[in-house]
Amino acid sequence: LGVSRHTVTTAYGHLAAEGFLDGRRRGGTVVSDLVALREPYTWSGPVLDLPPAGFTEEILFDLRPGTPDPRLFPITEWKRHARWAVDHHEAGYGDPAGITDLRLVLARWIAKSRGVDASFRQLMVTSGAQQAFFLLIAARTLPGDTVAVEDPGYHRFRNVVEAHGARVAPVPVDEDGIVVEAIPPEAKVVYVTPSHQFPTGVTMSMSRRLALLKLARDQDTLIIEDDYDSEFRYVDRPLEPLYRLDRSGRVAYVASFSKTLSPALRLGYVVVPPELLSDILDLREQVDWAPSQVDQLTLKGYLAVGEFERYLRKTRRIYQQRHSLVTDFLRVEATRHSLQPVASNAGLHVATHLNAGAETVLCRALADRGVAVEGLSTYFAGPTATGGLLFGFGQTNADQLQEALEIVGDVLNRV
Amino acid sequence: LGVSRHTVTTAYGHLAAEGFLDGRRRGGTVVSDLVALREPYTWSGPVLDLPPAGFTEEILFDLRPGTPDPRLFPITEWKRHARWAVDHHEAGYGDPAGITDLRLVLARWIAKSRGVDASFRQLMVTSGAQQAFFLLIAARTLPGDTVAVEDPGYHRFRNVVEAHGARVAPVPVDEDGIVVEAIPPEAKVVYVTPSHQFPTGVTMSMSRRLALLKLARDQDTLIIEDDYDSEFRYVDRPLEPLYRLDRSGRVAYVASFSKTLSPALRLGYVVVPPELLSDILDLREQVDWAPSQVDQLTLKGYLAVGEFERYLRKTRRIYQQRHSLVTDFLRVEATRHSLQPVASNAGLHVATHLNAGAETVLCRALADRGVAVEGLSTYFAGPTATGGLLFGFGQTNADQLQEALEIVGDVLNRV
Repeated sequence: LGVSRHTVTTAYGHLAAEGFLDGRRRGGTVVSDLVALREPYTWSGPVLDLPPAGFTEEILFDLRPGTPDPRLFPITEWKRHARWAVDHHEAGYGDPAGITDLRLVLARWIAKSRGVDASFRQLMVTSGAQQAFFLLIAARTLPGDTVAVEDPGYHRFRNVVEAHGARVAPVPVDEDGIVVEAIPPEAKVVYVTPSHQFPTGVTMSMSRRLALLKLARDQDTLIIEDDYDSEFRYVDRPLEPLYRLDRSGRVAYVASFSKTLSPALRLGYVVVPPELLSDILDLREQVDWAPSQVDQLTLKGYLAVGEFERYLRKTRRIYQQRHSLVTDFLRVEATRHSLQPVASNAGLHVATHLNAGAETVLCRALADRGVAVEGLSTYFAGPTATGGLLFGFGQTNADQLQEALEIVGDVLNRV
Repeated sequence: LGVSRHTVTTAYGHLAAEGFLDGRRRGGTVVSDLVALREPYTWSGPVLDLPPAGFTEEILFDLRPGTPDPRLFPITEWKRHARWAVDHHEAGYGDPAGITDLRLVLARWIAKSRGVDASFRQLMVTSGAQQAFFLLIAARTLPGDTVAVEDPGYHRFRNVVEAHGARVAPVPVDEDGIVVEAIPPEAKVVYVTPSHQFPTGVTMSMSRRLALLKLARDQDTLIIEDDYDSEFRYVDRPLEPLYRLDRSGRVAYVASFSKTLSPALRLGYVVVPPELLSDILDLREQVDWAPSQVDQLTLKGYLAVGEFERYLRKTRRIYQQRHSLVTDFLRVEATRHSLQPVASNAGLHVATHLNAGAETVLCRALADRGVAVEGLSTYFAGPTATGGLLFGFGQTNADQLQEALEIVGDVLNRV
């Protein structure tokens, strides 16, 4: 090809990092099974209005994304730590940032699991990631300010921005993640899900990560990095979090236990940039003072003895099996139908793109057969939305999933 | 006196209702032991700046108000219900208003204990009363709006108002509670503690209650009624909550388990006026989505089987003994010193007024002896503050309290 060995190696490295190549042990390198959509989005009709919860039909198989399997919740262990927590909770309202012991354990955990090196003093325990979003937006923006979000993206983040009176600026997402050059220069905040873009599932490329950090530095923008499900990564090592690459203190790293343990616990945390820390602490005191001590101590005990890691190892295997079922199915169907699966090696759902208006037809036909599937178009905030389907596997075991996918295949053949 | 029997009976009724007369069984009526200060506040110096938590000395006896006795927390029962709660918590994020079963139990509880007749649909479980304050202020005011508060009053409510950018209008409190005619007509919200004014301890008189409700009706004002500790009422029946007297849907009734069980649980609730309900639900979803299910189910179990009522009967006896120790002590000391105790038959603290700048001197002298006592002046928001001391008995048992009061007596004799 007339290029140097170094150029080839670098190119391979990038392709692998971004999910297009799979490195096999002693087997060289092969093109990834699921190659991200390369074409621009083809859907250019009006935004579809299909509310995610709008299923009037009976749901036999719930393939909607967003929640882990409640049957995997570590009931016995959690009860043991909850008993201990009731015995050891302290009098008083507690620290608005959360119990120091828990923050120390969390700081150790994210250092080990994600390479995020932050002092427990920067770490605040929140009532889910949702509260972290709220606190960051309230502390960093004024009504009328602009907040850039991925489009498609997480609607519950956009809702926080709108409730605060700030302006949502939807920024397109392509196979490399958010299109950094499309971020409006006046944006005070940019919200991203670099590890596993929600809902498309793409990984933000290293070059985009660096471009985004440069933008934040140049324009004094706060980046909210929502690392909502990187615990479930099945193949490659994840890219480094933005927080770790950042040298200018402009990244707030948000995570939660909603996708690993249960959203019912309302337990999340945020690593707050130093210059926002005192505002965020003040605000948290006004909003609800402090997190519940019993829940915090339960989590602390559960993390400290290593049970969470064991639980993750176990559940990762289970979800990996379901992930394979879905991706194997989609690979076959993609060749026969217009489905265009998005390369994804993480999380609890897989997205596919769809040509034109097929999304509505398929969602309705599946709902009629008792299969609840969410449309990709419902996650868009911008003027145009593209179609697609999200196949979540948090709420169905492998047998149920197999059954549900057979129905999906059947419906695909009929429409 | 040349007045009719009816006038006399009515006057007696009012005096008794407002705490100036005690009805004794078969003993006729006597003037209440503790008569509220009748004079206007005498302190007219600058606001004292003595931060409540600013004790650098070692604390041997903590007489600061605001928390119940952690040694009385029903550990065994709570653990039993917590185990049950972990077993029964449901998948998913849950209802932003809280679990229906808990809201049904709470609605039954406030109907029985306070005569508050509200549908569970109006009732939202919050992360302490603090979150209820935040939601109400955020839903009902815009930055720049005026919010009237009792002065002296609860600083953590004022903080919420200020954080929201609204204007705090401090309104004086006298022996009948908030001075309704001093509420600025532009106030969008009025915050009151009618059952047991915080921190003075006075009960809002019936005529003031009716005047406040009339004002709310005439000027479309939201009343936030914070019923923070009426569970601990030692002598008479409490007056009816504003919520119960209201016929125009303008009262938000707020309560919590922070003063009965523990503030560490972060469990409170609010009965929301119907016209605010959908805004408050929306806002709660943005702020932290929903309360923790395990905590909610634990509380539900604990309330549903009647254990909370038994716990209240038991702890009420214990706190009543401490309340008597403090009021007996103050009655004696008031005759010898310049202390002017405020009539109070409820709660976990008793307030006294003090002439001139004696507060600072006494607080410092007591701190030197290891007794932490808060000054009344620190609770004022207005331009002038009056002196006083708050004697809290949530954190000391009867023996410790006796010892602490001996030190107080000793210090009073020396300064």
